[in-house]
Amino acid sequence: MASAAASRVVCSEDRTPDGFRWLRLKQITWEDPHGRQRLWECAERSTRRGAIDGVAIVAKILRKGQPPVLPVLKQYRPPIENYCLELPAGLVDCNETPGEAAVRELKEETGFTGAVQEVTPICVSDPGMTNANMQYVTLLVDGDAPENRDVKQELDDGEFIEVELVRWDGLLQHIQASNR
Amino acid sequence: MASAAASRVVCSEDRTPDGFRWLRLKQITWEDPHGRQRLWECAERSTRRGAIDGVAIVAKILRKGQPPVLPVLKQYRPPIENYCLELPAGLVDCNETPGEAAVRELKEETGFTGAVQEVTPICVSDPGMTNANMQYVTLLVDGDAPENRDVKQELDDGEFIEVELVRWDGLLQHIQASNR
Repeated sequence: MASAAASRVVCSEDRTPDGFRWLRLKQITWEDPHGRQRLWECAERSTRRGAIDGVAIVAKILRKGQPPVLPVLKQYRPPIENYCLELPAGLVDCNETPGEAAVRELKEETGFTGAVQEVTPICVSDPGMTNANMQYVTLLVDGDAPENRDVKQELDDGEFIEVELVRWDGLLQHIQASNR
Repeated sequence: MASAAASRVVCSEDRTPDGFRWLRLKQITWEDPHGRQRLWECAERSTRRGAIDGVAIVAKILRKGQPPVLPVLKQYRPPIENYCLELPAGLVDCNETPGEAAVRELKEETGFTGAVQEVTPICVSDPGMTNANMQYVTLLVDGDAPENRDVKQELDDGEFIEVELVRWDGLLQHIQASNR
């Protein structure tokens, strides 16, 4: 086999239809390891400002004498015409680090204030069809701190999100039960 | 807050440009919980035959006296203009179960023959931008079985995939090292 190191993108043509604001569609010409040119189709988010599109947030909420819980969101997602259980997540704004985006999004979507514990390398969700990528950010939330007592969401217009607090060691069962 | 149960898709318009074969682009009109109509943009795979697009495969290769290993793939992905470390994965064919697709894809991409151990509920990779979805399938591979001794990939034209066998308990370190 020829070395895969020879692969490269030759050119990329924007084929987004008029009126699309959040997504771009591209036809990519790339050269395979044998030097043969091939076509690839790709959907992109048009909102990326830096190296990544967004963050997904694993928030561990700790309260004295109670088992840790994880906030998950239930929201209607038009692409699947259904409700989806998701980690809190969001796009990274201009001049924002992944950690800052995660703290901001967790606060907006759940009301909780957390502190960054860990940030993963960049993950590409579905690299065969899109360059959409993100980093997982782990946040620790002191559930007994004053700012986390009576939390309140700060949702944008058009966001309708229900927060569920799931026992840290019961996530799989929770997903399976929600799926029935 | 109005019940999120009222959300629904009102209509969906195909806006895919001519010449696209693998991807579709849609503009969706949906009704929010307050009864207000809103627009959503969505990219789809055009190849789905049943309920899911594809499978991602967690294959545990067991050999007597050795620690279990996980096969991960390194391949060039034109959408990100770079190489990506991925789980073996693939689209589900007509009349195929997720388990059958996983066994077939693992064999094609790595040469290994596995047995289905577990299939997760449906996961949507990035439900804000696409309906693309998949199920994770866990396969057990008897690395000492005759069919798994001298394994050989059976790649399609246009596939260039390097297989790496990573210690089961060393995946994170492997990803971090590959990322440098």
